[in-house]
Amino acid sequence: MDKKALYSLSYGVFLLATKSGEKANACITNTGIQVANDPTRIAISVINSNYTCELLKESGVFTLSLLDQSVSFDTIKYFGMQSGRTVDKLGDLPLPEDARGIPYMGWGACAYISGKVVSSQDLGSHTLFIAEVVDAAVLSDKEPLTYAYYQSDIKPKPAAKPTEKKIVGWRCTICNHVYEGAELPADYTCPLCGHPAEDFEPIYG
Amino acid sequence: MDKKALYSLSYGVFLLATKSGEKANACITNTGIQVANDPTRIAISVINSNYTCELLKESGVFTLSLLDQSVSFDTIKYFGMQSGRTVDKLGDLPLPEDARGIPYMGWGACAYISGKVVSSQDLGSHTLFIAEVVDAAVLSDKEPLTYAYYQSDIKPKPAAKPTEKKIVGWRCTICNHVYEGAELPADYTCPLCGHPAEDFEPIYG
Repeated sequence: MDKKALYSLSYGVFLLATKSGEKANACITNTGIQVANDPTRIAISVINSNYTCELLKESGVFTLSLLDQSVSFDTIKYFGMQSGRTVDKLGDLPLPEDARGIPYMGWGACAYISGKVVSSQDLGSHTLFIAEVVDAAVLSDKEPLTYAYYQSDIKPKPAAKPTEKKIVGWRCTICNHVYEGAELPADYTCPLCGHPAEDFEPIYG
Repeated sequence: MDKKALYSLSYGVFLLATKSGEKANACITNTGIQVANDPTRIAISVINSNYTCELLKESGVFTLSLLDQSVSFDTIKYFGMQSGRTVDKLGDLPLPEDARGIPYMGWGACAYISGKVVSSQDLGSHTLFIAEVVDAAVLSDKEPLTYAYYQSDIKPKPAAKPTEKKIVGWRCTICNHVYEGAELPADYTCPLCGHPAEDFEPIYG
């Protein structure tokens, strides 16, 4: 058996968020599909060792934000490469919430779905959740992010040789908001996601 | 609720084939994801009214061929837009088979997976099958076909205005095999998929 064959399955890239009592967390996942209509059901598979999975088993409710091609690598890194057991990923961010108070992505996402788990199955490494779609909204007309596009265009390539170029602006690494100008004020806060100046990177002209 | 939000979920495009006793059939599906590793499990969702779904419930075994960007619209049409209840889709085609004798795509697919159903759940319109991956192979290094690419590049657009151009070859609409030459012999049979001259379309120079 050549397990590389499975690499050719196509996926999107999503932010999965849940809230159980006062505990809330979000992670990046790529397995989300619509599995039935009338009633509309989606299925998501989540790694069991994941804190979001633990909370989702308690709460049974979540949002799935469908990330789009404008999302930055740092957003993926922020949500996908640190654990909610050690960092409060959602506490600092002014994210919008669905009708049940569960956060979803306010930038870098073209749609979100509010789900309510109707059944789950433990598959060893992952749990597969089947959920009713209780709400859903389109957020933008940007292209949905696929896992293949993430690998080819979002994930950083080895750094290129530095060149002598002028700084013309600053980009928020969390939400991609652009500040125009050579000097970013030290006390600047991103108007979109609320992150401070140290989360901005220079844009060279 | 805006159900259009669900259109931004990303999918591949697959040929799902199964064999129950002497009955065999295949259809086009787009919901297939890996849901667990160790052991490796995939999930596929299939429309209940579909003949392939009926046979799969009997047999519990299938192949999932991961179509690639070289597949023709006519292949999709052949497998996806007619029912195995009225047409023997697999009988005429010299397709390769997995170790269990289940056919998979011999062209237009970059990989295939042999699955064995371990559980299923009826969701009304569809049944969700969870399957063990018993075998898998890479068939080519072509790009996997996504549903978005199918919509933008494979599905025919309204016909363009005809121009006076010379025929330089003929393309098999089933498997994309190209015959070079202005005149296709009437008794010509595609060396790749076995289809006759009437399944070829002209290529203009």
